[in-house]
Formats: sequence, C-alpha cells, structure tokens
Amino acid sequence: MKRWMAAGILCIAVQVGWSQSVNQDAAKLALMPLPKSVAMGQGELALDGHFHAGFPGSPDAKPDARLDAALNRFLVRLDRECGGIRRAQHEAKDSDPLTLTLQVAGPGEAVQGLDEDESYKLTVTPSGATLSAATDVGAMHGLETILQLVRIGASGCSLPAVTIDDAPRFAWRGLQLDVVRHFEPVSVIERTLDGMAVAKLNVFHWHLSDDQGFRAESKKFPRLTEVASKGQFYTQDEMRHVVAYARARGIRVMPEFDIPGHSSSWVLAYPEIGDGRTLARLPDEYVEPVVELDPTNEKTYKFLDMFVGEMSAIFPDAWFHIGGDEVEGKGWKTNPKIQQFMQKKGFKTNDELQAYFNQRLLPILKKHGKRMVGWDEVLNPALPKDIMVQSWRGEESLSAGAAQGYAGILSAPYYLDGQKTSETMFLADPIPADTKLTPEQQKLILGGEICMWAEQIDSGTIDSRIWPRSMAVAERFWSPQSDRDATDMYRRLRIASLELESVGLMHITGPGRLRRNLAGSSDTKALDTLAAVIEPVSFGEREDHQHTDAYTSLNRLVDAVVADPPARQEIAAEVDAVTDGRSKATGAALRSRFENWQQAAPELLALTGQSSRLSDAGPRVQQLAALAALGLESLAYLDAHSIPPAGWLDKQKVVLKDAAQPSAYVRFVCLPALEKLAEAAAK
Amino acid sequence: MKRWMAAGILCIAVQVGWSQSVNQDAAKLALMPLPKSVAMGQGELALDGHFHAGFPGSPDAKPDARLDAALNRFLVRLDRECGGIRRAQHEAKDSDPLTLTLQVAGPGEAVQGLDEDESYKLTVTPSGATLSAATDVGAMHGLETILQLVRIGASGCSLPAVTIDDAPRFAWRGLQLDVVRHFEPVSVIERTLDGMAVAKLNVFHWHLSDDQGFRAESKKFPRLTEVASKGQFYTQDEMRHVVAYARARGIRVMPEFDIPGHSSSWVLAYPEIGDGRTLARLPDEYVEPVVELDPTNEKTYKFLDMFVGEMSAIFPDAWFHIGGDEVEGKGWKTNPKIQQFMQKKGFKTNDELQAYFNQRLLPILKKHGKRMVGWDEVLNPALPKDIMVQSWRGEESLSAGAAQGYAGILSAPYYLDGQKTSETMFLADPIPADTKLTPEQQKLILGGEICMWAEQIDSGTIDSRIWPRSMAVAERFWSPQSDRDATDMYRRLRIASLELESVGLMHITGPGRLRRNLAGSSDTKALDTLAAVIEPVSFGEREDHQHTDAYTSLNRLVDAVVADPPARQEIAAEVDAVTDGRSKATGAALRSRFENWQQAAPELLALTGQSSRLSDAGPRVQQLAALAALGLESLAYLDAHSIPPAGWLDKQKVVLKDAAQPSAYVRFVCLPALEKLAEAAAK
Repeated sequence: MKRWMAAGILCIAVQVGWSQSVNQDAAKLALMPLPKSVAMGQGELALDGHFHAGFPGSPDAKPDARLDAALNRFLVRLDRECGGIRRAQHEAKDSDPLTLTLQVAGPGEAVQGLDEDESYKLTVTPSGATLSAATDVGAMHGLETILQLVRIGASGCSLPAVTIDDAPRFAWRGLQLDVVRHFEPVSVIERTLDGMAVAKLNVFHWHLSDDQGFRAESKKFPRLTEVASKGQFYTQDEMRHVVAYARARGIRVMPEFDIPGHSSSWVLAYPEIGDGRTLARLPDEYVEPVVELDPTNEKTYKFLDMFVGEMSAIFPDAWFHIGGDEVEGKGWKTNPKIQQFMQKKGFKTNDELQAYFNQRLLPILKKHGKRMVGWDEVLNPALPKDIMVQSWRGEESLSAGAAQGYAGILSAPYYLDGQKTSETMFLADPIPADTKLTPEQQKLILGGEICMWAEQIDSGTIDSRIWPRSMAVAERFWSPQSDRDATDMYRRLRIASLELESVGLMHITGPGRLRRNLAGSSDTKALDTLAAVIEPVSFGEREDHQHTDAYTSLNRLVDAVVADPPARQEIAAEVDAVTDGRSKATGAALRSRFENWQQAAPELLALTGQSSRLSDAGPRVQQLAALAALGLESLAYLDAHSIPPAGWLDKQKVVLKDAAQPSAYVRFVCLPALEKLAEAAAK
Repeated sequence: MKRWMAAGILCIAVQVGWSQSVNQDAAKLALMPLPKSVAMGQGELALDGHFHAGFPGSPDAKPDARLDAALNRFLVRLDRECGGIRRAQHEAKDSDPLTLTLQVAGPGEAVQGLDEDESYKLTVTPSGATLSAATDVGAMHGLETILQLVRIGASGCSLPAVTIDDAPRFAWRGLQLDVVRHFEPVSVIERTLDGMAVAKLNVFHWHLSDDQGFRAESKKFPRLTEVASKGQFYTQDEMRHVVAYARARGIRVMPEFDIPGHSSSWVLAYPEIGDGRTLARLPDEYVEPVVELDPTNEKTYKFLDMFVGEMSAIFPDAWFHIGGDEVEGKGWKTNPKIQQFMQKKGFKTNDELQAYFNQRLLPILKKHGKRMVGWDEVLNPALPKDIMVQSWRGEESLSAGAAQGYAGILSAPYYLDGQKTSETMFLADPIPADTKLTPEQQKLILGGEICMWAEQIDSGTIDSRIWPRSMAVAERFWSPQSDRDATDMYRRLRIASLELESVGLMHITGPGRLRRNLAGSSDTKALDTLAAVIEPVSFGEREDHQHTDAYTSLNRLVDAVVADPPARQEIAAEVDAVTDGRSKATGAALRSRFENWQQAAPELLALTGQSSRLSDAGPRVQQLAALAALGLESLAYLDAHSIPPAGWLDKQKVVLKDAAQPSAYVRFVCLPALEKLAEAAAK
C-alpha cells in the first residue's frame, strides 16, 4: 500500500505553468526512481470492481506473450494492494470500457540492447488511464510506475490524475552479482531480478567464475564444474531460464568469466591452459595462492574460442564480460616459456602481456557476435575503441577512459559491501555536474553498475545487503542529474522498500529471522533495539579481522543488521530539533529511545553471556547502555537549562570514543548525533 | 538455537532406574515429536572446531548418495546454529576421530513403504555420539533429533549426554495438500517437505485434481492441463523432482486424482468420459455446478487405464488415492443411458454405482502396481479388504471401517482450515485410549493425515496455516499414546516453530509481511497488538460470508493472523495467576497488556478508517478497547479488594458478548480468560 506522505519535497524538474497546489500534490507522490517529468491533474481514477485493463483494437489484437505475462504480474500485484482487481478483470467483457489502456507499438528488440526504447508516457484522468510505450520494456517500466501511484483510502483504491513522461538518463543500469564466493540458488537470482524490475534496472551482470569456483555448466569442458564447483553451479537449462526470466522483465543478462587472472578454477580443471603452476585444490579465500591463464599458449585461445561459442548460445546479450582485473602474473614471471615469449615480443610488463591477451581475445568475441567488457585494467591504448570499461577504481578513472574515447560504466561508488549509506551512493554521479568531459565524451559514459561481491554474504543475508539501498542507486542511474534531495529520496525509499518486500524480497524478514535464531526466541525486542542503531562495518574492516569464505558461518550479529538503518537519520533529526529548541515532543521521543536502550541492556547482556554466537557483542551492549546514559543526562541538562559539572563533556567524549572502537564487525550509526547532543548540553 | 527451558514436565515413558536429577534434565529437552524413550546421561559432548561426522570403516566405505546428502544438509543446519561446523568437517582428516558416528545398515526400501524401518538409536556421551539405524530414513529422523538436542552456551555448542531409542507409533504420518483451489509453486512444495522432515512426517498426499482445475501434466491427455489448469500445473519433470526431493527426506508422495466426483476438470477437457452434462468453463468455487465421470462408459476405464499407467511411471508409491468423496451423481440421475445401465445391473442408489466404478478401477490400479486409497465414501462391502479408507468424517467412521476389516487413516480432526488449536488436534488420537477395537483391528489403523484444503489460502499465507500446528499433530502420529501433556507440548512447539523457520518456512515472516503491507508502513506495532489476540474463524464460518476462490484477494486482516496464537495461553495463565492471588508480577504483566491494547486503539482506528482493506476490522478495534477497559477495571477492583457497583458485571458480559460476535472473519482468543477475570473482580 502506498501512502501519500506529508513530509519532504519532490525534487524534479517542475514544468512551467504548474499551479502551486498541483505542485504540492506531486511532492506527495512516492515514485522511485523519479520520472523525467510529472504533471498533476485534477481528481482521481477509481480502481474498483469495474477495473478492466487491456489493449485497444479488436479483441483479437492480442499483445505479445511477454507483455501479456507482464500485465498479468501487474494485475496480481495490484490485486494484492487493492483487492477485487483480478476478479474484475476476469469478469470484464471484451466490450467493457477499459480503465487502463495499453498502447504499445511493438515488442522491441529481439535481443535487448543499448538502443532499446525504454520510454513511456502515462496519462491518468478520472475517466481512465493510458500507458503508451514504443516497446514492451517501456510499458513494463510504466506498469511499475502505476503500482507506485496507487493509493488506498477508506472507500478503496485509486490513481491520482497525472501525466508522466519518462525515460532513463542512462542506458546501462546494472547490478553485478558474484555467485562464486558464495553460491546463490536460482530462486535468489529470480527474486533479485524481480527487485531489479521494480527499480527499473536493466542489466544483470552475472559474475560466474573466479578463483574460488566455476558456476556455469559447460558441456564442452565438463571438468570446469566437475572439479571446480563443489557441486554448486548452474546447469545450462537454469542459465537459459534466468536469461528468459530476466528478458520477461526487461533485463539483459551479461555473463562474466574472469580471465586471465582470478582463474584458478579454470586451471584446476584444465592445467594445460594455466601458467604452469599447479593447484591441489580451489583456494577458499581470495588471499590464498592463485594461478592464471597462459596468454602465450595457443591452446588457451582454442579453449576460449570453444567456450565463448558455447556460452554465446546461452547468453544472447551483445556484451561479454571478460573480467581482466587484478592479474597478479606471478606465474608469468616464473615460467621460462612465458618469459621467453615476452622477450621475443618485446613486452616489458605483465600489463603488456595482458593487453596482448585481450587483443587475441577480441576476434574470438567478435566471431561469436560479442563486444568486450572488462574491469579498469583492460584499458590499454593497444585495444580498439569498441570495448567497454567497467570502473571499479572510480569516476576519475572512468572519465580518463572516456577522454581517450572508451565507453564506460561506473561501479566504484556502488560497492554494496562498502556498507555506505544510500545517500552517499545516491549522490555519486557517473557524470557529476562539474565533469570536465565534453558533451561528446559524456556520451561514452553509458551508466553504472551496483556491485554485490559475495565474500561476506550468503543466501540468508544477500537481500538485506542489496535492498533497499540499490533502489537509491537505481534512481541515480534513471533520474535527472538535478535529482539530489536526499531527504526526499529517503522518504520514498522507505515506501519502495515495502514494495520490494511485496515482490518477494526478504531484506526485512531475513535479518528478523536471523535475530530470532540468535536469540533462540521469537521475542527479539531487546536484540531489535540494539540492531536498530548499528550497521555492518565495511568489507575491508571486517576482512581485517575475519577472512570469510564459503565455510564461514554468516550467523552472527553483523549478519543480522543492515547498512544505513532508519534510526541514523531519525536520531540525527531528533537531536537537531532538540538542540535547536524546536520541539518538546522530539525531546520526549529521544528520551523514550534512550530509555529503551537502557531497558534492553540487561537482557542483551544476559543473551551475550549465554551464547557464544553473541559473545563478541558484549562490549557493544555495554556501550549502548553508556550511550543511553549520555543521552539521558544531556536531555536532563538541556531541560533544566543547567550546565553540567566540569569534566562532564570530557567524560562523554570518552564514552563516544569507546563506542567508536571496532568490535563485533558492527558500528553505531548515531555517534555524530549524540556528540552534538552532549556538546549542546555542555554549552 | 535451542534453549533448555525450565518450565514444563516431559511426559514420556520414564525408564525405571532414572535418578530424579537425570529425569529433570530430560524434562528440559525440547524434542518434538517426543521419542519413544529417552535416558539422560552425565555431561555433554562439545560441538567445536574438532567436529567430525562420518561413517565407520575404511575411508572408501562411502554412504549412499541419499544419506550423504542428508548429512550435508544436517551439517549446514548445525553450522548455522553453532558456527565452525562446516569448516571443522572440511578440514578434518579421514583419520581424525569421529565426533558423530553414523552406523546405517543400508539405504532401506527402493520405494519407501509401510514396512520401512524408521527406527533409530542415538547415544551421546562426552566423548562422542553414535547414531544407528537400519535405513537412511531412520538415520534422517535421528539427525533431526540431534539438531533438536543442540544447546548453545557461552563457550559454544554441545549435545547433552543422552540415550534415545526411537521409532514411530504409526507408519502412516501424512500431510495432504490441495493445490487445486489455489495453486502452489514448486518452491512452496519444497519448503513444505522440508518442514515435514523436521516433523518426522512421512507421506505427502498431493491433491492434484478437482473441479476447479487439473494440476498434473499428462502427455497422453494434454487437454487436461491445456483446458483445465489456467496455466497453473506441474510439469512431469517438476512432479519427478518433487518425488525425488521428498524421497531424499524420507517422505513418500501419494498423488490423488479425485474421481468420479469432483471431476469437472477432467470432463471439461474430455467431455466423452463425463456424465453427459456440459460445462462452459471450470467452476471457480466448489458451490458452483459440477459434472462427474460416467461409470457406465467403457471409454472412461480405457482413459483411466492409460492415465494411471502414465502417472504410475512418475509416482512410484504403492498407494494411489482416487478421491471418491462427495459424489453428487446429479448427472447420473438425469442421463437415460446411465439410468438404463443401473436398472440392468439392479443398482438402486448412486452409492451402488460408485461401488461398481471402484470395483472396475481396482484391477486397473492393480495392473499398474497400485493399491487403492479413497475417502470415507469408497467404503463399501462390495470392495475387497486391501483398499484403504481415509476418514474425513471422524474417528468413529474410521473405527467402523476397521471393525469391517478395512485399513484406514484418520483425517477428520486434523483439518487445518478448521482453525482449531494445536492442543485440540494434538489430543485427537487415531486410536483413543478407550477404543473398542480389538488389538488386531487396531493394527488396521495405520495412522493419520493432516489436511490442508486451499480455498482460503494462497502461497503467501499457506505456511502460517500449516505451521507450527502440524508439528503438534505430527507428534500425535509419532509419539506414544500416553503423551498427552498439552502444556509441555506447547513449550516444545514454540521452540520447534523457530526450527521450522530456520529450514525456510515463512509461517512467522509471512503474516508480518502482510501486516506491513496492510499498514503501508514498516511500523506495525499497533496492528501486531491486535493480531496477537485474534485468530481466523473456521473455514465454515468464513465461507458463510465470503466465498473464496482463485480470484479472491487473500490480503486482509484474517489472512495476516494465525490460529491459536501464544497470547491465548499466556493470557489464560496470567488470569489464572491473578485470580488465584498467586502473583503480583503477573498482574503487572496483564495490566501492561491491557494498556497496550488501549494505546493501540486510536492508531488502529485511524488505520481502519484510512484503508478499505481494513475497514471491516473497525468493530474489532472498538472491542479491543472495550476489552482493555474491562481488564483494567477488573484488575483495579481486585487490587483494591473492593466490589464493583451493581450492574458492572452485567455490563462486562455485554462487552464480552459483543466481542464474540462474528466480524472480519476473525475472533478473539482471550474471551474465556477475560470473563473469568471479570467474574473474579465482581466477587
């Protein structure tokens, strides 16, 4: 159910001529990502027992199967929100007037590409709604928008009168998923794609091979999964299913097979294409010794030719990701044959050998109708300009590529395991307002990709790591550059998060389930209180203390909390209001919050003392109690307009510093706000 | 995580010679279903970084693939509880001593049947655990028991020293699932089977056809799903997958194809085997006109012969359910050809014609190696004694069958849509202690089946309708007849419920998700407060007011609450304690509960006023507030030892009577306790 929320201001390009009141209505919508243009009308369209959606023209003018299926999924979701929709649609006669008319020119490209027309136009008046699009994909985006417009009232559901003209800012809006470090079953891939469709993301970048395993079945090279997958891989039928499932939702699937580095799984299965070093087993962690492909061996290219050909029959996308990152080249340095080859060719560095490898790879990809994508490291002047670079190093590296004429997509700011806030990721722009790139060069920045690396996630935690934060990035990729109001973004994100849940994602229920499991009880009130104000530390901080691999149990407090929980903003806003002297009520809310922390502490301490899985959280509980005392004392001084004794503030700073120490792989999200509160109390 | 709970007494056949203290330890275990015999030992076995599970004998003595997979699933679950288990197992050398030794004589029957030896013996000492079983199935039951024994403490996980000797009381312990009235995807079937394995249930009875649809793909008769499934059916590959998935968990799959009644889907697709009446479309509801098979037509038997043969290749189980219930026979009465046939045969009633049909069916089933199962109505002296009767009419009807020499299973008390308490279902015994059956006749009672009919459920609500209540029935089917302590059953059920969640069931998260969707917010505290004290009314009461079918939106308050919520018992216990004058603390808990109701009421009223989906819940909210006032006033009088004014109790009775009125398809679970409280206050 979507509610029209009072708070926040919609930051969109407001059309000239909007009246003030209409403008305010638009500001209450909860669309995400924001459309290019929204113009409110007067009144609303009832979604009731007369609901009828369909296509204009004769009853025989049927839509293509993809659009028909998309409409059916839409009806199921609308019905869940409103009730009565599926029955109305079932009982409607062809001759009954249409409540929702779909005008879709055609299905779109047989293989979705960068030129796919994803635009749509939606007009809602009190007498009916019309969704027009050039392609199925545009129509599907429009259907998502309609679902976000639905409001439920005492007398039923309706859509506000509105005209929306929408199209994406970037053509490439991706989510990359590593299924190697932890394998994810097809059901997880499916619900990830469902979430992507809600977010209007359109590229699923499937990281299918790495040192730790090979996840794609090859019938030509069966040892890849026999030897190097521990039984965890996708059959060809499953991969075809994923491609079809994605296409049904307007999403391309780009496979990544990471070469010539990150290639231990290839070499364990087929040592003859390796760098000469031998592996007894797959490395579990990324810090363990790894081996690489031999770029000087003709067998390697014959192998890759056959392999790319086989995979091209499964993945119709025009783009093929060859990885290319972090090539250590240790084996290249110690293998005399490789060294001899380099000398002969005049290569001084491994980079030059890798560029040679990529040059040899290019005609192979071309032969199978593919264009090359690689991480930053593939960028080399020796390569032609029709490859694309995915930047994990940052926006500057991306711009440097564009300045040289290479197309690129940005990923560095969108690494989900960095555990950054939605706001930080939302504000990072593939083409910042102050870009130095020329308009022509800017056209080479095709968009971006969110990255979900899997060292620290499993199928129980993945959803809460991806969602809802990816929705904020999806807005960055879709909406105008001028859309930078983080407060309003968060208002809409809270609502979008419920929509993501209702399509099947478990980002809310997953952490709750793990907390019940941790507490050994369905009463997790105390644990929830702690979880609400902490978040996981970044990948690197956790990695410093815990090397996670497929055998690590991801079943501790850090796995049961989420990045950027709402309490961060809420507490900051409450503290701002109190220190500005704006609100008594806010002071009461803050006091009640601190009292909750205080009350939860004894039960939490008992829990951490009883369970080895929570033992490392003990210090965090002590700190929570100390922060509660800091808060309550601060409020008391502020209320009494009295000055605390000398040394009080210093004592509070010690409390804050202690709470900022690393422990249990989690960190508090409220420390800056509490510092501000204590400082205000001390004034 | 399993906690050793202090409350409750374990009701098991206590072995002679147990010391009192050991006996008390056993009483703290949370095993469910209760084993046949449990003897506590001294000390515990650590489950730590030295954990190593395996099979005795040479390293080459590998278990069969089914047992190996079961052990792997066990390790994943144990690892989730304890951490470090998978790594320890991964790093253990074959020569390292075994922490858990599995001694399994053999895989068991190639097709699991009634004679499968499901027993196991488990011995845990501080130096190691040994699980012995004759078959994989017995071993899998033992592995479930081990998981229930795990306790986690400050220093890690352990198993208590214990000796368990276990075997089921009944060989047939089933769950019947209707996938016709609402279709369930394979993922739901899978997690239902996972839950059944936890509950040691061993028969999945798959109700695959009915008037409203045909859910099993037939390649011989493709129109069955083309015409009569609306696209919602299982492919043969999917059915084979379900059979394999079930077998991997020690569960048989018995298909049901309901004939000659409940057969509209057959006849819509193939009118030539019908009773002569025609159908324009599938009936949506069970109250709509239906048609039946023609038992007088030789084509019917040729059809069924081919069909049973085709399905027998998919379902290896020895038993085949032919439905046979609720044959209206309207078409039989109006079809002159059928009437002529009956006259010729001397049949006076439809029952006789149905018995003829079943007699004709028997050799067909036999030919394909199947034995016949049918609902009560198949019972007819004309039929041989090797058929089996599933009683939906009750234990007396079952006993009557047994007295005539027919084998049977009980289902009547275990209809989940009756929304009865776990306690009521738990206490209903297929062979009650006061049975009049001879020991020989008792042997004909093979067990029972829980029934989940699907008119009022969908894939979002099914888990919370089946679980955790089915666990209580599963204990009835497995554990000794003398196990009748409902208080201790509930203690263990709360813990088992978390285990069911951790294998993937959504009986806790599903209703929570729907409440967020109803509230349009992730803050559902007020709605949760109401939901905690109400439950769905029975199938019949809901059906009186709402005819649900596949087009009904199951998205209202009734769908977001569960049968027999814990608050029913909790409030009853708190009221008992207060009225007995036993506990001041309990009075405070009760007061806090009533205050919560009072506080939630305004927010709930606002919600019900805002959303058409909650509008019917308005009266319930008013009643909640009135019950809160009743509770608080009662406590005040009791506290003050003062007598309420004349007429006060009468006024409260009006409040209670009002709250007992039907509305919103839900009912309060606390009315008897509140009546007791008010009466005590008035004394």
